[in-house]
Amino acid sequence: MECYFDNSATTRAYPQVAEIVSEIMLEDFGNPSSLHTKGMEAENRIRHARETIASTLKVDDRCILFTSGGTESDNMALIGCAEAYKRSGKHIITTRIEHPAILETCAYLEDRGYEISYLDVDNKGLIDLKQLEETLRKDTILVSIMHTNNEIGTVEPIAQAAQVIKKVNPNTLLHVDAVQGYGKWNIYPKKLGIDLLSVSGHKIHGPKGVGFLYIASGVKILPIIHGGGQQKNLRSGTENVPGIAGLAKAAELIYKDLDISRANMYAMKERLIAGLLKMDDVVVNGPVGEDSAPHIVSASVGGIRSEVLLHALEEKGICVSAGSACASNKPSISETLKAIGVEKKYLDSTIRFSLSEDNTMEQIEYALEVLEDIVPMLRRYTRH
Amino acid sequence: MECYFDNSATTRAYPQVAEIVSEIMLEDFGNPSSLHTKGMEAENRIRHARETIASTLKVDDRCILFTSGGTESDNMALIGCAEAYKRSGKHIITTRIEHPAILETCAYLEDRGYEISYLDVDNKGLIDLKQLEETLRKDTILVSIMHTNNEIGTVEPIAQAAQVIKKVNPNTLLHVDAVQGYGKWNIYPKKLGIDLLSVSGHKIHGPKGVGFLYIASGVKILPIIHGGGQQKNLRSGTENVPGIAGLAKAAELIYKDLDISRANMYAMKERLIAGLLKMDDVVVNGPVGEDSAPHIVSASVGGIRSEVLLHALEEKGICVSAGSACASNKPSISETLKAIGVEKKYLDSTIRFSLSEDNTMEQIEYALEVLEDIVPMLRRYTRH
Repeated sequence: MECYFDNSATTRAYPQVAEIVSEIMLEDFGNPSSLHTKGMEAENRIRHARETIASTLKVDDRCILFTSGGTESDNMALIGCAEAYKRSGKHIITTRIEHPAILETCAYLEDRGYEISYLDVDNKGLIDLKQLEETLRKDTILVSIMHTNNEIGTVEPIAQAAQVIKKVNPNTLLHVDAVQGYGKWNIYPKKLGIDLLSVSGHKIHGPKGVGFLYIASGVKILPIIHGGGQQKNLRSGTENVPGIAGLAKAAELIYKDLDISRANMYAMKERLIAGLLKMDDVVVNGPVGEDSAPHIVSASVGGIRSEVLLHALEEKGICVSAGSACASNKPSISETLKAIGVEKKYLDSTIRFSLSEDNTMEQIEYALEVLEDIVPMLRRYTRH
Repeated sequence: MECYFDNSATTRAYPQVAEIVSEIMLEDFGNPSSLHTKGMEAENRIRHARETIASTLKVDDRCILFTSGGTESDNMALIGCAEAYKRSGKHIITTRIEHPAILETCAYLEDRGYEISYLDVDNKGLIDLKQLEETLRKDTILVSIMHTNNEIGTVEPIAQAAQVIKKVNPNTLLHVDAVQGYGKWNIYPKKLGIDLLSVSGHKIHGPKGVGFLYIASGVKILPIIHGGGQQKNLRSGTENVPGIAGLAKAAELIYKDLDISRANMYAMKERLIAGLLKMDDVVVNGPVGEDSAPHIVSASVGGIRSEVLLHALEEKGICVSAGSACASNKPSISETLKAIGVEKKYLDSTIRFSLSEDNTMEQIEYALEVLEDIVPMLRRYTRH
């Protein structure tokens, strides 16, 4: 049985997404900057996509900026804000368990004279609102907190964090990396107090190479890519019309039956966790209840290195990831697992299952059977 | 008759490109950073694409870096170089007729303490090699010259420029924006002395939202987008595998019968120019011979504003552009036309025809008939 359990790394596109991408590449292929019909058709595709996406967030469609993906969205939010608000301050707060797109961009900004404070997390990956409050300063221009952690599925208390931030410093902006959260939850930036929100297409059965950044009205950011002045001069470069339309189609479809698909994922997650915990020397990391991501299960299997288990599962048609794996493919110890205090012996024995609406309970049962079969065998083998 | 003559703004994708994009979105949809089979399949797609593209340039495939398009490639080349070599100097040379992706990025760098020198061009849009020689300095880290101009089709003397540069300062790098040249000519960076070369997918019947930057071995650039460390840490973000494979397929196809399609385009260009020049008060801007781009014709039609003519042609099914038009859609006077000394009365009466292998001689004849019909009428109308 083929079981793709690496949906937090990337998802299979919806057939309707592939269809619209292909259709636009061959038919409405114009450049939205062109003044003739072909250009107008392309511009209309973008307008429609912007409206579709804005409606999933309940925001004004003028607040949606298209990018080449989640990483660019994160870079734009952080660098674009840092540049735009540097006269107000150079202090930025984030957490220890962000995606590298945030952490590496923070490191880049640190090299350029910005000061970054990293919030700790508890053993479930949750930030401490008190620490946030104490860390905020007059010169804090931006706080960046992920919505849903990509390795252990923690869902951060965004609304409460926003309240704390606005109480201490109403000028401080809140950026949320929602790459793993969008399409799993209804996220309403205005209700939650979010100023900037990053989303990626290929995590929601949309195309790779496209994403968006929500920018609340009144928030200024400076561009990081310069040129023809597209998208109100914020993101130059001919718009990826097929990708943008595909992203909007994916957003529309994933939000259509969200409650049902989320409930299905929770049921699969619950069954997977129950099966895993029955096994000897297996622990599940991070939160497991309905306050956690419906699609992410991080498990440490004592005595077996992640890569060994990954490849053994692969031979049975099961795809999981070792560590985070939507970053580069060099295996390294996860900062997230360290931050939540995973025991040292488990650090390099951790795999991640990540589900989507494509998965079934049969696949979960099959994976558990396979694990029950191969884990004892691998342990015997690696103890030789 | 439908005549799409705006191929320098964007092209219709080859059906085979749309096919491979769709196939990968639905089948080999893995994340190249994943360690399992689905990841390997995706990684193989990228490797194959890199090899295909490298072979069109006769370079090592490790020199190909994928980006989100021509604009990002240009930004990476300029900013990435400026950052990497700032200890060697902060002087950059470019020309007055570059695409905004170069000019605006230069303006950004100017704001950050870099000094930019702009080379003049003659009435055909050609740079002066003597001026280049005189402008080069010990602290010149980079020269950026476009291969083929997007508005008037000038092909710059890249090989000679490279010789001048290396003679005066062997450490100065040469970047070439080949967005309009790649796929129209065989461009061999090593033979020509090019260190960095930018290409866009959607100008060669490939996908939008993808491009590449050739970086000669030994040339260092710093990333402008930070994160998971993909592509040797130079361009973070999950690779746009379908887009990259589509780009490579387009490169393969456009170079397959290049001589034939170029000859066809020259024949169409020649016929179009001959027909235009027969008309009263119409001039053709820039070079017109076989040393110019086979696909670009810039014409000024005295007494009629570009936009008026554009929309009149559109009503007859003919798509052209006013000015450059692969930039934003605000109509403004072209810096390129000013730089080559186009008479003031023609500056806002200029349209661009840009061809591709999709066009036919019948379309050219039709366009000329339409022009002969509507130009006198529009002149009568606008003189009222």
